[in-house]
Amino acid sequence: MYSLSQIAELVDGEVQGDKDTPINSMAPLDCAGEGAISFCAQRKFLSQLKSCQATAVLVKQADAHLVSQTAIVVADPYLAFAQISQLFDWRKAIKSGIADNVFHNQATVSKSAQVCSGVSIGEGSIIGENCYLGANTVIGNNCIIGEGTRLEANVTLYDGVKIGERCLVHASAVIGADGFGFAKKSLGWQKIHQLGSVVIGNDVEIGAGTTIDRGALSDTIIGNGVKLDNQVQIAHNVKLGDYTAIAGCTAVAGSAKIGENCTIAGLVGITGHLEVAAGSHITAMSLVSHSIKEAGVYSSGSAIDKHQNWKKNVVRFKSLDALAKRVKKLDNAVEVLLSKEDKSKA
Amino acid sequence: MYSLSQIAELVDGEVQGDKDTPINSMAPLDCAGEGAISFCAQRKFLSQLKSCQATAVLVKQADAHLVSQTAIVVADPYLAFAQISQLFDWRKAIKSGIADNVFHNQATVSKSAQVCSGVSIGEGSIIGENCYLGANTVIGNNCIIGEGTRLEANVTLYDGVKIGERCLVHASAVIGADGFGFAKKSLGWQKIHQLGSVVIGNDVEIGAGTTIDRGALSDTIIGNGVKLDNQVQIAHNVKLGDYTAIAGCTAVAGSAKIGENCTIAGLVGITGHLEVAAGSHITAMSLVSHSIKEAGVYSSGSAIDKHQNWKKNVVRFKSLDALAKRVKKLDNAVEVLLSKEDKSKA
Amino acid sequence: MYSLSQIAELVDGEVQGDKDTPINSMAPLDCAGEGAISFCAQRKFLSQLKSCQATAVLVKQADAHLVSQTAIVVADPYLAFAQISQLFDWRKAIKSGIADNVFHNQATVSKSAQVCSGVSIGEGSIIGENCYLGANTVIGNNCIIGEGTRLEANVTLYDGVKIGERCLVHASAVIGADGFGFAKKSLGWQKIHQLGSVVIGNDVEIGAGTTIDRGALSDTIIGNGVKLDNQVQIAHNVKLGDYTAIAGCTAVAGSAKIGENCTIAGLVGITGHLEVAAGSHITAMSLVSHSIKEAGVYSSGSAIDKHQNWKKNVVRFKSLDALAKRVKKLDNAVEVLLSKEDKSKA
Repeated sequence: MYSLSQIAELVDGEVQGDKDTPINSMAPLDCAGEGAISFCAQRKFLSQLKSCQATAVLVKQADAHLVSQTAIVVADPYLAFAQISQLFDWRKAIKSGIADNVFHNQATVSKSAQVCSGVSIGEGSIIGENCYLGANTVIGNNCIIGEGTRLEANVTLYDGVKIGERCLVHASAVIGADGFGFAKKSLGWQKIHQLGSVVIGNDVEIGAGTTIDRGALSDTIIGNGVKLDNQVQIAHNVKLGDYTAIAGCTAVAGSAKIGENCTIAGLVGITGHLEVAAGSHITAMSLVSHSIKEAGVYSSGSAIDKHQNWKKNVVRFKSLDALAKRVKKLDNAVEVLLSKEDKSKA
Repeated sequence: MYSLSQIAELVDGEVQGDKDTPINSMAPLDCAGEGAISFCAQRKFLSQLKSCQATAVLVKQADAHLVSQTAIVVADPYLAFAQISQLFDWRKAIKSGIADNVFHNQATVSKSAQVCSGVSIGEGSIIGENCYLGANTVIGNNCIIGEGTRLEANVTLYDGVKIGERCLVHASAVIGADGFGFAKKSLGWQKIHQLGSVVIGNDVEIGAGTTIDRGALSDTIIGNGVKLDNQVQIAHNVKLGDYTAIAGCTAVAGSAKIGENCTIAGLVGITGHLEVAAGSHITAMSLVSHSIKEAGVYSSGSAIDKHQNWKKNVVRFKSLDALAKRVKKLDNAVEVLLSKEDKSKA
Repeated sequence: MYSLSQIAELVDGEVQGDKDTPINSMAPLDCAGEGAISFCAQRKFLSQLKSCQATAVLVKQADAHLVSQTAIVVADPYLAFAQISQLFDWRKAIKSGIADNVFHNQATVSKSAQVCSGVSIGEGSIIGENCYLGANTVIGNNCIIGEGTRLEANVTLYDGVKIGERCLVHASAVIGADGFGFAKKSLGWQKIHQLGSVVIGNDVEIGAGTTIDRGALSDTIIGNGVKLDNQVQIAHNVKLGDYTAIAGCTAVAGSAKIGENCTIAGLVGITGHLEVAAGSHITAMSLVSHSIKEAGVYSSGSAIDKHQNWKKNVVRFKSLDALAKRVKKLDNAVEVLLSKEDKSKA
C-alpha cells in the first residue's frame, strides 16, 4: 500500500487531488477498480477516462484537465507506469542465507546473498552482495556475479562467466556453453574447443531458456542494459551493443556485431560475421544476411495470405527471374512497335 | 499384457476372431510382429495388410472383410490406436511419497502425490492428488497444481502459476517468467514489472523447453485441452483458446488472442495484439502479421529451391513493385496499339 | 604448457624453428601474444603474418617460407588448430566419485565416472566409464550412457534413452520427451502415448536447450558424429545420418529422414515425413517443404531490405500469380502485333 504522494515522488510527478489517497495495485484503464492506479499514454485512450473506475490515473499535463479522478501529472505516463510497477512486483525481498543443501567448494558467497535449495557453486566463483540464486541453479567454477544480480531457478552458468550488477537471468537460461565450432576432417568433424568465455554488462535481462555461448578464442560480449527475451540464441563471439533489445526466439550467429540501441523483433535470424548499425530496427522473422551499414527499419519475408492464393504465388516466385526477363523483352518489343507507330503516323 | 477383449472395450470396438488373444505391444503395419496390435487408418495402407505380421489389427467396418488377422472393428482406427497407446506408456504408475531431500515450506502436498528428489516447492503452494513432480523441478510460491497433473524433471514454475487437472508439462519448460516489457527511457530501458501470472486449464500438454510468460497486469491464459509442442514461446497476456495445438518452435507475441481449435504448425511467428479466428490453420514458418478474421488455411514464406535459382529470384523480389508497375505501363501501351490496329482494320 | 614438438606431434606437423618453444595459449593472428600459437588457414590472412605477435604459427607447406616466426607446417592449418584447441579446454579432468547427495536406485554407475551434486539417476540405468554428469542433471530409468560421455548441468534424459561414447550434451538439453502426437477426437485431442525412445550414436554433440523427442512406436535415431547446436528441435522418429551438423534453432518435424553429411544452417524448418539427400546443404531460415532427392545447396525465403521498399514488394507478392498471367497475355498480344507488322511489311 502506497500513498499517491509516495508514488508521485518516485515518478517525479505532481498530484492532482488528495495526496494521501491509498494505492494498492495497477491496472489498465478498462479494468482498473478501487485502489488501482492506471495510465493514459496515448490520446486514443482518452475517451476511456470517463468510465474508468481507477482510483488514480497517470496523465500528461496536456490531458490533465480531462481527468475527473485523482491523478498524477507526469512527462511520460507510460514510463511512469513502468517505474511504479516495481512497487507491486511479485518477488519477495531477498532473505540472505544459504539453504542447507548447497554445495560449494571454495566459492565466495556474500553474506547478504540468498542461495536457494539445490544450488551448486563451483570453485573460485564469487557471488556479490544481495544476489539471489534460485533453486537448482548451477554456477560453474571461477564465475563472477555482480551485486544485486538475480538468477532464477534452473539457470546454468558454465565456468568463467562474468555477469555485471543488477542483472536478471530467467529460468533455464544457459550462459557459457560451447560455441558451435568444428573443423571438417576426412570423416566428420573435429571439435574446436571453445577457449573464450562470456562477459555480461550491468542491468542486463536474459529471458527463460535463452542461450549465450562462450567465445572460441576471445569472449562473447553482452553490453550494458541489453534486454533479451525468451529462447534467444547468441552464438560464440557475438558482440551486443549497450541497450540493444532482442525479442523471443531470435538467433544471432557467430561473430556478428550488433550496435547499440538496436531493437530486433522475434524469430529474426542474423547470420554470422556481419555488422548491424547502431539504432537499427529489424522486423519480425527477417533474415539479416548481410551487414546493415546505416540505421533504419529493415525487413524480409512475405506476408500472410490465404493458403490457396499463397500456393499459386509461391510457385511463381520460383520463376520470378524469368518473368522479369520476359517483361524486359516485352518492353523492347513494345518500344519498337510504338516507334513504328510514330513513324507511320508521321 | 492385455486380452483383445480388454482392448476392444477401451475403444468401444468389436472383436473379429479370438477375444482372448494376448496383446503386449503396438507397432506400425510394416514392422509389427507376434503379440503386437497395429492399425490401418488410411485406404492406401490396405495393401500392407496381407503381409502384416501383427497379431491383431484395428480396422473400419468397411475394411473388415479384407483382414485375415484377428481384428478389432472400430469407427476411427487412428483414434482407437491413440487410445490404446496409453496401455503401453513407459511411465510407471506414480508411487506416492516425498523423496528425502525435498525442501518445502508451508506448502501443501497431497498424500497421494509423488515428489522426486531435488524438488523445491515454495510457500503457500498446493500440489493436488496424484500429482507427479519430476526430479529437480522448482515450484515457486503460491502455485496451484490440479489433480493428476504431471511435471517432468527440471521444470520451473514461478510464483502464482495455476495449472489445471491432468496436465503434462515436459522437462525444462518455464511457466511464469516475466513478460518482455520495458518502457524507453532517455538512456536504455525501464523494466515494467510483470504483475499478472499464468492460468492454465485442464488436459493441457506443454512441451520440453517451452516458455509461457506471466502477464503484465492481467494473466496469460491457456485454455483447456491446449497442446503445445517443444520450444514454443508464449508471451505475456496471450490467450490461447481451448483445444488449440501449436507445433515446435512457434512464437506468439504479447497480447495475441488465438481462438479455439486452431492448429498452428512449427516455427510460425504470430505478432502481438492481434486475433486469430477459431478453427484457423497456419502452415509452417508463416508470419501472422495482422488479424485473421475468418477460419481457413493461411500461409506465408517461400518454397525451397536450388540455391542458384533462388538467388536470382530473391534479387528480383527487391524490385517486384517496379516490375508490377512496368507491366501496368506495358498493358496500357499494348491496349493503345491494339485499338489502333482495330481502327486501321476498320 | 606444451612444447612446440608436443603440439606438432598431436597434429602430425613439422616444426620450423625451436622444438622446445613453450606454448601456453591459442589466439587469432591479430591478437596473439607471447606464448600463443596462431594459425593462417586462408591466403587472405597471409598479410597479417608480418605484424603477428604469436610465438608460433600453423601454416601450410606452400606458405611456410613467408613465416618469420617459429611455425608448425601442417596439411590443414584450420584442422590442426581445432585439434590443438583441446589442450587448452576449460574443462577440468574428471574426478571420479559421487557427490554426497546423489540419489540413485539400483543404477549402475562406473567407478571412474564423476557425478556432481543434485544428480538423479533412475532405476536400471547404466553410466559408463569416465562419464561426467553435471550438477542437477536428471537421468530417467533404464538409460545407457556410453564411455567418456559428458552431460553438463541441468540436462534431462527421460526413461530408456541410449547415448553412445564420447558424446557431449550441453546444459538444459532434453532427450526423450514425448513426441507431439495426438489424434483428433470429437472434442479436442486424444494423446498418442509415445512408446519408442531415442538412440544416439558415438561422438555426438548436442547443444544447450536442444530437445530430441522419443519415437511414437519405434525410436528416434541420431547417427554417429552428428553435431547439433543450441535450441535445435528434433521431433519423434526423425533419423539423422552420420556426421550431419545442424545450427541453432532449426526444427525438424516428425519422421523426417536426413541423410549423412548434411549441413543445415540456423532457423531452418524441415517438415515431417520427407527425406533430405546425403550431403545436402540448406541455407539459413529456409523451409524444406518437400523431399530433397539430390545433394546440393538449397534455399528459400527473401533477403533483407529497407522496410519501405520491402512493404511495397511484399504486397505485390500477393498477386504475383495474376502478374505472371498478365505478362503471358501481353506476350500473346505483342506476338500478334509483331506478326501483323511483319505481314504489313511484306
